[in-house]
Amino acid sequence: MITAVYPGTFDPLTRGHEDLVRRAAGLFDHVVVGVAISAGKNPLFTIEERLQIAEEVLGHYPNVSVKSFGGLLKDFVRQEDARIIVRGLRAVSDFEYEFQMAGMNRHLLPDVETLFMTPSDQYQFISGTFVREIALLGGEVGKFVFPSVERWLQEKSQARLAAKNAQTPKSE
Amino acid sequence: MITAVYPGTFDPLTRGHEDLVRRAAGLFDHVVVGVAISAGKNPLFTIEERLQIAEEVLGHYPNVSVKSFGGLLKDFVRQEDARIIVRGLRAVSDFEYEFQMAGMNRHLLPDVETLFMTPSDQYQFISGTFVREIALLGGEVGKFVFPSVERWLQEKSQARLAAKNAQTPKSE
Amino acid sequence: MITAVYPGTFDPLTRGHEDLVRRAAGLFDHVVVGVAISAGKNPLFTIEERLQIAEEVLGHYPNVSVKSFGGLLKDFVRQEDARIIVRGLRAVSDFEYEFQMAGMNRHLLPDVETLFMTPSDQYQFISGTFVREIALLGGEVGKFVFPSVERWLQEKSQARLAAKNAQTPKSE
Amino acid sequence: MITAVYPGTFDPLTRGHEDLVRRAAGLFDHVVVGVAISAGKNPLFTIEERLQIAEEVLGHYPNVSVKSFGGLLKDFVRQEDARIIVRGLRAVSDFEYEFQMAGMNRHLLPDVETLFMTPSDQYQFISGTFVREIALLGGEVGKFVFPSVERWLQEKSQARLAAKNAQTPKSE
Amino acid sequence: MITAVYPGTFDPLTRGHEDLVRRAAGLFDHVVVGVAISAGKNPLFTIEERLQIAEEVLGHYPNVSVKSFGGLLKDFVRQEDARIIVRGLRAVSDFEYEFQMAGMNRHLLPDVETLFMTPSDQYQFISGTFVREIALLGGEVGKFVFPSVERWLQEKSQARLAAKNAQTPKSE
Amino acid sequence: MITAVYPGTFDPLTRGHEDLVRRAAGLFDHVVVGVAISAGKNPLFTIEERLQIAEEVLGHYPNVSVKSFGGLLKDFVRQEDARIIVRGLRAVSDFEYEFQMAGMNRHLLPDVETLFMTPSDQYQFISGTFVREIALLGGEVGKFVFPSVERWLQEKSQARLAAKNAQTPKSE
Repeated sequence: MITAVYPGTFDPLTRGHEDLVRRAAGLFDHVVVGVAISAGKNPLFTIEERLQIAEEVLGHYPNVSVKSFGGLLKDFVRQEDARIIVRGLRAVSDFEYEFQMAGMNRHLLPDVETLFMTPSDQYQFISGTFVREIALLGGEVGKFVFPSVERWLQEKSQARLAAKNAQTPKSE
Repeated sequence: MITAVYPGTFDPLTRGHEDLVRRAAGLFDHVVVGVAISAGKNPLFTIEERLQIAEEVLGHYPNVSVKSFGGLLKDFVRQEDARIIVRGLRAVSDFEYEFQMAGMNRHLLPDVETLFMTPSDQYQFISGTFVREIALLGGEVGKFVFPSVERWLQEKSQARLAAKNAQTPKSE
Repeated sequence: MITAVYPGTFDPLTRGHEDLVRRAAGLFDHVVVGVAISAGKNPLFTIEERLQIAEEVLGHYPNVSVKSFGGLLKDFVRQEDARIIVRGLRAVSDFEYEFQMAGMNRHLLPDVETLFMTPSDQYQFISGTFVREIALLGGEVGKFVFPSVERWLQEKSQARLAAKNAQTPKSE
Repeated sequence: MITAVYPGTFDPLTRGHEDLVRRAAGLFDHVVVGVAISAGKNPLFTIEERLQIAEEVLGHYPNVSVKSFGGLLKDFVRQEDARIIVRGLRAVSDFEYEFQMAGMNRHLLPDVETLFMTPSDQYQFISGTFVREIALLGGEVGKFVFPSVERWLQEKSQARLAAKNAQTPKSE
Repeated sequence: MITAVYPGTFDPLTRGHEDLVRRAAGLFDHVVVGVAISAGKNPLFTIEERLQIAEEVLGHYPNVSVKSFGGLLKDFVRQEDARIIVRGLRAVSDFEYEFQMAGMNRHLLPDVETLFMTPSDQYQFISGTFVREIALLGGEVGKFVFPSVERWLQEKSQARLAAKNAQTPKSE
Repeated sequence: MITAVYPGTFDPLTRGHEDLVRRAAGLFDHVVVGVAISAGKNPLFTIEERLQIAEEVLGHYPNVSVKSFGGLLKDFVRQEDARIIVRGLRAVSDFEYEFQMAGMNRHLLPDVETLFMTPSDQYQFISGTFVREIALLGGEVGKFVFPSVERWLQEKSQARLAAKNAQTPKSE
């Protein structure tokens, strides 16, 4: 049985991520979506929210699991007994980052392979950063994320707005 | 009438930016330099200062306007009734960022085109980040920015130095 | 009046090229599709065929002309009195080539701008080389070229096959 | 059962290719090394030689087959009933070519995935072109190819030299 | 006498850095490793620690000096009377950054050359960021840094852990 | 004494090449411009012409030699007793080629360093291919090559034209 780990921050899960998970799930016996806690990156959604969002979108795939991890990817891969790390690679990817990560993992996990998959054309230009920025400014992101994720982003956007207004004195 | 928006943080406007505005102004009926407030990027100059700097350098072009915008680029483009988004593209550009932005805007603004222009050879390597770093350390940046902008940078540098000295106890 | 030249070999014109012409035609007063004779590249279609194919696909745009040119792009641009050279730029473009061409034309034509446009997502990965290879081997290329172009490719493919069979002695 | 096709010209098979096959063979049930006839590329070794070389190096892997193909990769993949196309991707790869090929195959073979693997550090810079050039000039290529392949290259180099000398009149 | 400055943050010095210093020391009369204070980058190690680490690893090279600098690289290069700035360039380097820095320094220091060297294959994928992340999470980094540096990283990791525990109320 | 070899086809030597030689000559004791015979590349100028052109432009530098080589670069470097291979690296370079060549030479010549230098801004976009194409079509290339080289290109262009006319029957 071949298990593949697909690690990322998934802040939040986009249509591009889902596309990749669906395709990986068609190839490998088991796909574990590893949601990195990534506290240092100061994500928009908490780890609990990101797990719940991923579950909502991916829960219907029988051979896909969604799990969080906080330490080394290496240890998470070992714990899941995975043989494969899956990463999406797009023409606009940060190749430096991807190749460095794959290169270092080759040293740390000599018996685990990093496999790069390319998403469908329509998901080649989705950027998590842009999705968050657009959504927080009240823009439409339905082309980039699933409807349930869009609602999560709208709630987050309204919560931020409310918090901001609460800080601002009325008279201004 | 064709209006082109040239969006950016312009912190501050460099000779490379000016080169691009001048050339765009020669092609299109109206060029709107859209200065993004970009509070999240923690810019060196306030939005008011960045607008004033851009005005000082670009004010003499009859078909160029300088405006700030705080929300979505999409909404700014619509508000200006623009058909074109202009971006500079250099061999050392952050292609990932540029292609993702153009790709997402193709979805959000299907009837607006992103046009990439390349600046003159002598402006191919100007980096806003380096210009700020050099200027704040007291270095010469006259080759990269206009004289009036150089003065703005010197003032900012001295203000920072003064603020730093004020915080440091005398006896040290 | 602004005239833009869109130069290329167009061997043959693909859906990606058409997408770019359509968008440029919406921005500029006049778009001249300049089909380079490119004898040195040993194209699959003759210059007459390439002109006819481009005419068939683009003929219905009132402000688009299709012309051949054999000498310097610089001279063709001057002859058409164009202010703009349009080039498609995709995340998988040959950036080296594009930047060198734009850079050299900046020296040769200081008052003409090279503008890069990016095609729609679904045309990001069309490669003329692959289209020709697939078609000559009898594969389906209807997703990459218009139906009339597909017929041209089928005819060329059959003509090549017939020529090959004619050279081969019967007894073999 | 998952079959992966690893297509290429393999002119000749290098240590980098072998590294990739070994790793793919550890992940998938069956790996088919598809040696493209590539007559147009004017390869150094005939298709028969390239098949024999690949067999010599890879024959001991029980789940690896070496086959030639002359038509469309698409048809070869279908004939082998493969679900996966494997390609090596190095930091010095021709990304344009790889992404275009993967992108076009996504259209032609929607149910087949292209997976990119990265070879070990010591094989990151092996270039088939350089290996052939060095070997034909009599240089050492033992670090880049297996000993049996080195002998093939030496023979080819000597055959070429002999052919050249035969053409040259004695008196010169 | 030719002096080369090798500037960087060296947070901490890796095997890749050492490889480059060793090779530069074989070519030039004097190599000055310039450790940038880089307060803005919020380095893991203090400038004193980074200097000490670099000294421990590089101290045995007779023609290598380790020095800190806080202002402009330009001024440091002048102060050291250097003719050369050395930078490592890997296939996974941040080319944008490197070319912009070299380009700006060509303007600021017209008589000083930036020379790029490429490290050995096994050091092509070492990323300082990954090394720090892995070490702080308790992972093995012995393949990427010298033993003495590994000890520094372990101490730093334990100090951080202790500080974190001290902040957490016991009862939790 | 440090000797640096600067290898290339130099078909013909451009202002960009001269810029690099001048700068290398300021750093190293001796610079050998190694003109590769490169018969396989079918160069425009014969090896004798390329050597003469390079001599005309570079002859006045006391520590620069111009030599041809026909075999392995490795052997030429050994023969010249060089410690350094110099290559120009521009933002529009063919990085794949440069990194593969440097990587393979690290294996073949472990004690020789490849150093990459970047030419001045105004020479960043000179492409030998474009220079030849423009010159053969009668265009101006004085910004890209020295006057003496421009004359060589004009002669070659006229010789080609004359040869072509001679082949064409008068009556046509």
